Amino acid sequence: VTSGTGGRRVDAFSDGVFAIAMTLLVVELPFEHVAPGRLGHALVDHWAGFAAYAVSFLTIGIAWMHHHAVFSQIRNIDRPLAVLNLLLLMSIAFLPFTTDLLGDYIDEPDDAVVATVVFAGSWTFATIWMTAIWTYACRHELLDPDVSERGAERLQRYLRATVVAYAVFTLVALVSPIACLALFSVAAVFFLWRSDHRALEREVVE
Amino acid sequence: VTSGTGGRRVDAFSDGVFAIAMTLLVVELPFEHVAPGRLGHALVDHWAGFAAYAVSFLTIGIAWMHHHAVFSQIRNIDRPLAVLNLLLLMSIAFLPFTTDLLGDYIDEPDDAVVATVVFAGSWTFATIWMTAIWTYACRHELLDPDVSERGAERLQRYLRATVVAYAVFTLVALVSPIACLALFSVAAVFFLWRSDHRALEREVVE
Amino acid sequence: VTSGTGGRRVDAFSDGVFAIAMTLLVVELPFEHVAPGRLGHALVDHWAGFAAYAVSFLTIGIAWMHHHAVFSQIRNIDRPLAVLNLLLLMSIAFLPFTTDLLGDYIDEPDDAVVATVVFAGSWTFATIWMTAIWTYACRHELLDPDVSERGAERLQRYLRATVVAYAVFTLVALVSPIACLALFSVAAVFFLWRSDHRALEREVVE
Amino acid sequence: VTSGTGGRRVDAFSDGVFAIAMTLLVVELPFEHVAPGRLGHALVDHWAGFAAYAVSFLTIGIAWMHHHAVFSQIRNIDRPLAVLNLLLLMSIAFLPFTTDLLGDYIDEPDDAVVATVVFAGSWTFATIWMTAIWTYACRHELLDPDVSERGAERLQRYLRATVVAYAVFTLVALVSPIACLALFSVAAVFFLWRSDHRALEREVVE
Repeated sequence: VTSGTGGRRVDAFSDGVFAIAMTLLVVELPFEHVAPGRLGHALVDHWAGFAAYAVSFLTIGIAWMHHHAVFSQIRNIDRPLAVLNLLLLMSIAFLPFTTDLLGDYIDEPDDAVVATVVFAGSWTFATIWMTAIWTYACRHELLDPDVSERGAERLQRYLRATVVAYAVFTLVALVSPIACLALFSVAAVFFLWRSDHRALEREVVE
Repeated sequence: VTSGTGGRRVDAFSDGVFAIAMTLLVVELPFEHVAPGRLGHALVDHWAGFAAYAVSFLTIGIAWMHHHAVFSQIRNIDRPLAVLNLLLLMSIAFLPFTTDLLGDYIDEPDDAVVATVVFAGSWTFATIWMTAIWTYACRHELLDPDVSERGAERLQRYLRATVVAYAVFTLVALVSPIACLALFSVAAVFFLWRSDHRALEREVVE
Repeated sequence: VTSGTGGRRVDAFSDGVFAIAMTLLVVELPFEHVAPGRLGHALVDHWAGFAAYAVSFLTIGIAWMHHHAVFSQIRNIDRPLAVLNLLLLMSIAFLPFTTDLLGDYIDEPDDAVVATVVFAGSWTFATIWMTAIWTYACRHELLDPDVSERGAERLQRYLRATVVAYAVFTLVALVSPIACLALFSVAAVFFLWRSDHRALEREVVE
Repeated sequence: VTSGTGGRRVDAFSDGVFAIAMTLLVVELPFEHVAPGRLGHALVDHWAGFAAYAVSFLTIGIAWMHHHAVFSQIRNIDRPLAVLNLLLLMSIAFLPFTTDLLGDYIDEPDDAVVATVVFAGSWTFATIWMTAIWTYACRHELLDPDVSERGAERLQRYLRATVVAYAVFTLVALVSPIACLALFSVAAVFFLWRSDHRALEREVVE
């Protein structure tokens, strides 16, 4: 795994996994054939599945933007970095499963906590791998030469903040699954609305 | 998210979501194992599922061409534009679900209206995001410098016309689901046959 | 849809549909949980599903090579060509469904003919679209300037031969489904073994 | 299939199959809706499915890195090489099925041996195709001119070692399925940890 073509192949491969994971979410949407005349009610009753779909889709989309921001500032991809990326992709590819679990069990009082902890925990792992990638790239001088030290530190603080946030959301899930899901939604909306985070922009050395 | 490599990564990622959504349509085709000697009849009885498959495949294909026409004329992709694109992709990735719903319920009198409204409504949302992308890109001067103002306006009128058309189709679905599906088919055939729409061609400034 | 980047985006999008259709074949492999100690027998009994999987995978792979050979010699992709490509991709994306049907019904005497005719007929349609693409590109002068007239004619004869072959296989299916499947296998092996077909190589004008 | 753009299209297509196969693993994860309050236990009971998922994901990821290492050193892709690559991709695309089988049957005493032999045997085939690709490319002078003979031989020894290792794992499966799965896990961890294998790095001729 080298720079140039090599790096672009890692990008293309990662894009594939992100795109497929996002699109597979809908396949996992559980929806049985309903009795005649009940479709409208069934769709409304199924709100949890659709909410989980939307939250997961947007959150994976945001993770893809983070991935993009991270890798567009990395010039050389060595093998350990490719391994870290593989572990990140494993977390991402697992999300259709945890999203399905969440939609299935969020309105069942006895199992909602387990399903939500699994969902939020998977996200926490994914953000840990993303942060590890950036930390490794910074320490081993794999960044593009025109990335400033200040820009690199700002992105690192930003990524660490996402790890802390998602870990807190996981703890909240132990108390209230609905509150955890609401926090993920708020985080997604906040990110999408405040989508000009300076941390995600490349800062050129003067 | 910047121009150059960045822009191309957004293209590749979007292509992935479009291609996967189109190919997943067939996985959602509901088809149970039939009693011996009944396969021919079962396939014929299942006309609605196949019709929904063909209409959705071609309509997503046409949306991909619109996406292509829009993004090939955009030079710089900033973060809000990437967010709008993510919302568009969320609508597209949802279509295998709504198509499955349509094929399942179109010949059930009590639920056909709900299924068709959901299907047509999803398409209306998708075209709204597509139009928003182009409007945003025009207003924030993200277009390629060689795109003429006239060409940009023509594409905008064209995209707005698709929004209006799909919104009308959704209203028609409230009265007659079959008529709505027929309108989508006619729109697809019209587009594919009159596939030299000038609005979709790039017009170079003289 | 223009040349350059545009053409490459059509390539990438088509590659996506081919790759997904091939990989989805395995998802459609029907296989229920068996009674304890029966797994070995169940796998052997299921020979038809695996044979259909292998034949379809290799035949889609061969179609991808044809697609590659055709599009690598086309310089400009206009909108009608993109529409023809979309119709080709619709046939390809439908193959996981017909392959599943074939594996499911080939050993059921009453339905084997219907399943095999649907399978072989889909392939015939796919080859018709592929041939239409090349014919259109030749007539509208969209080829690379360094493709010789002789090379173009040879590829056209070759593609027409595949249409005729697959149409004959479809007729054979009316009489003997097993013979039809055997012919597809032989055709795949023949192609893979005689994989240096001159028709698929680009012939440069002197 | 020629060098340049052609070669890159083979890369993109292969990346697609690898990425989809990895992401489909999770769709095949069998998981029924459980009785209220049993979700936690059900997830723990289902350890074999999750272990099979993780081992398969990482092993396909490692195979992708091998594929990357092999193809980044090949300059020209002729048709027989494309056919060998197709056979490799067929083995890779089959892995979601064998992984599902493994997770389903590993804790059923009567069928664990069959499921594990099928799983390990598929992997052995995949490594055989990978080795055949490199051997063919070396013999037919399709390598990049700056790849040294010593580097080429080292990669060949390395790839042959993986074939031998996976064949041995398959034999172990006949005696102890769990031992076979453990060996695959150890091999994956070993590879990921010792991820600076010189055999996988390109050695430039001086």
